[in-house]
Amino acid sequence: MSLSFQIHTTSGKGRRGTMILPHAAVETPVFMPVGTVASVKAVPQHLLEELGARIILGNTYHLYLRPGHELIRRMGGLHRFMSWHRAILTDSGGFQVFSLNELRKVTEDGVQFRSHLDGGAHFFSPEHSMDVQIALGSDIAMAFDECTEYPADYARARKSLDLTLRWAERSKRHFDAHKQERPWDESFPGQTPNLFGIVQGGMYKDLRREAAERLVEMDFPGYAIGGLSVGEPRELTREIIAETLPYLPKDKPRYVMGVGYPDEIVEYAEMGVDMMDCVLPTRAARHGLIFTSEGRLNIKNRRFAEDQGPLDPECGCMVCQRYSRAYLRHLMASQEPLAAVLNTLHNLAFYLDTMQKLRDRLEAGQPVASGSPLPPL
Amino acid sequence: MSLSFQIHTTSGKGRRGTMILPHAAVETPVFMPVGTVASVKAVPQHLLEELGARIILGNTYHLYLRPGHELIRRMGGLHRFMSWHRAILTDSGGFQVFSLNELRKVTEDGVQFRSHLDGGAHFFSPEHSMDVQIALGSDIAMAFDECTEYPADYARARKSLDLTLRWAERSKRHFDAHKQERPWDESFPGQTPNLFGIVQGGMYKDLRREAAERLVEMDFPGYAIGGLSVGEPRELTREIIAETLPYLPKDKPRYVMGVGYPDEIVEYAEMGVDMMDCVLPTRAARHGLIFTSEGRLNIKNRRFAEDQGPLDPECGCMVCQRYSRAYLRHLMASQEPLAAVLNTLHNLAFYLDTMQKLRDRLEAGQPVASGSPLPPL
Ligand SMILES: [Zn+2]
Ligand SMILES: [Zn+2]
Repeated sequence: MSLSFQIHTTSGKGRRGTMILPHAAVETPVFMPVGTVASVKAVPQHLLEELGARIILGNTYHLYLRPGHELIRRMGGLHRFMSWHRAILTDSGGFQVFSLNELRKVTEDGVQFRSHLDGGAHFFSPEHSMDVQIALGSDIAMAFDECTEYPADYARARKSLDLTLRWAERSKRHFDAHKQERPWDESFPGQTPNLFGIVQGGMYKDLRREAAERLVEMDFPGYAIGGLSVGEPRELTREIIAETLPYLPKDKPRYVMGVGYPDEIVEYAEMGVDMMDCVLPTRAARHGLIFTSEGRLNIKNRRFAEDQGPLDPECGCMVCQRYSRAYLRHLMASQEPLAAVLNTLHNLAFYLDTMQKLRDRLEAGQPVASGSPLPPL
Repeated sequence: MSLSFQIHTTSGKGRRGTMILPHAAVETPVFMPVGTVASVKAVPQHLLEELGARIILGNTYHLYLRPGHELIRRMGGLHRFMSWHRAILTDSGGFQVFSLNELRKVTEDGVQFRSHLDGGAHFFSPEHSMDVQIALGSDIAMAFDECTEYPADYARARKSLDLTLRWAERSKRHFDAHKQERPWDESFPGQTPNLFGIVQGGMYKDLRREAAERLVEMDFPGYAIGGLSVGEPRELTREIIAETLPYLPKDKPRYVMGVGYPDEIVEYAEMGVDMMDCVLPTRAARHGLIFTSEGRLNIKNRRFAEDQGPLDPECGCMVCQRYSRAYLRHLMASQEPLAAVLNTLHNLAFYLDTMQKLRDRLEAGQPVASGSPLPPL
């Protein structure tokens, strides 16, 4: 196993830890920016480093289609290909494949689907997803799962979960047999990617519990809670997380996939979640939606046309230190490519700073309910 | 006058100088990146500083339409609005207005035109162009001229030049009366923008000479040669520059507008030109056209798909130091916004480094024809 996880302090249910991966030591709880096709959209890697990002996400489905995992393997793996030398987590491709609705067909063996790029036919199985992720050489790979749709009735969620659990076993078996084939150079002797299992089970607590227990028996180095943020009300998301966490090992990293708003990620971290990812800060930025210590704002709004203040007066990021809302609004109105760059830099800084403050608070053992040094979210 | 120009050494006809403007000392010969609507497209200002840019261009026509010069004046001028604290040159708006072909009508008084954005009716006169440029607060403003089309017969070029010369007088009179109204703060006591005259005259040497002599009588702090790069063959561009330069004062900066390819800017600088600007390096970059010491390449080309080398093995820029052609090709193929950022950074670095090498060579007094330390272009 090429992952070690240490919890330094706990505060309530929240945990302040360090996860050591082949390419980086990651302080947890951590928010992971999404770099879909080998780029966190619009942000040069050295600025991502300056923001303090230690781990980012890559999307297996997208990278498999373009430029192709075998090309990336020949280029020395995803880290070297994109010149990002800190940690990378890849998803399994399952979520994207299941989002293709009309274009896919699920069987016991795997998923037949058509590319959103050119309509070409492709097939993903647990084994193939592992092969692709090993070729990419991520620090953390994810088991191939079926992301149960919402709403799903009990019988459907049961059936979907059973498939996910069979696929988890196949994922693990194939991964363990081939993980040495990762494309890293000789500076990583004996180290390999790590495979996380994914808890499904729809919105049914007994299924979630069963999924967690079955995956724990398979013994993964970390566990994710998937199938959330699929349209369910937020209270339900929180409930499912709260009900599932007790069945996951306390000494291993726990990852909630695809969340969320700044106040959500704080809340889940305080519940004991160690890792989260979401396209929200980057995607919203490109549409002018800015997260600040005073709440959200749409920088395209006319009321910012002559606003000389920064996006967020509490933010120390390179954008807030240099540019006014008036200028950033003008860049959006003029459809200047710099708008996406600067908005994204700020939103990511806000997310990463939010997590940094949260880690500081957990470290200080400050109870969740006490007067919080975190800005209102 | 808020401009001083010192020539340190000459080599052949080339001049190595320093132009001191209110916001920056600019080493000449200089290439000025174009920042059309208050942004050098896709490049954050701090990276533009890192590239060593000391002066950039703003486009009066575009800024007048959006966000509007009065808004920029209220924001403290263009430097403060875009947070670029080095020098800025603005064009007069004439070139863009004349490019609107179907949408404009020229009279003695000025040009009636329709916005390319919303079709709204607008009017630019020499006086209005000065008002706009003073509101923007550029370090160097340009006289409002008629850019004579190519080809134009002698009578047409004569008539167009006469209009340009009358407009030059009106520009200067209005500029001198109002230049104190620039929006700069108290850190620029007594300083004002500077107005350059523009030599027109089509492709006729006697008209060019007459234009230069008439403008020199009006006494501008610098002179531009306009109406080039409008479709004429390159030998003709060079001929007109060569014929015009002798009629411009040796002790004032001489600016050729809208050029050019890397080998062109070197050639013109060796002929005695001090300033140039062009959208080529930035616009080409967004289309994947890369300038290198080995010539041009289109990074979208399939042959770069697995090329682990940098864009230019001779280039020390932050892009060539970090990213491979394979990765940059992938970013273009995937239409990732980072492609424009990185390609533009390299192309600008290449142009600015080319000028730096040229300045070094002029400083060393190396004759043009000798074994050149400049890479082949
Ligand atoms: Zn900020
Ligand atoms: Zn370069």
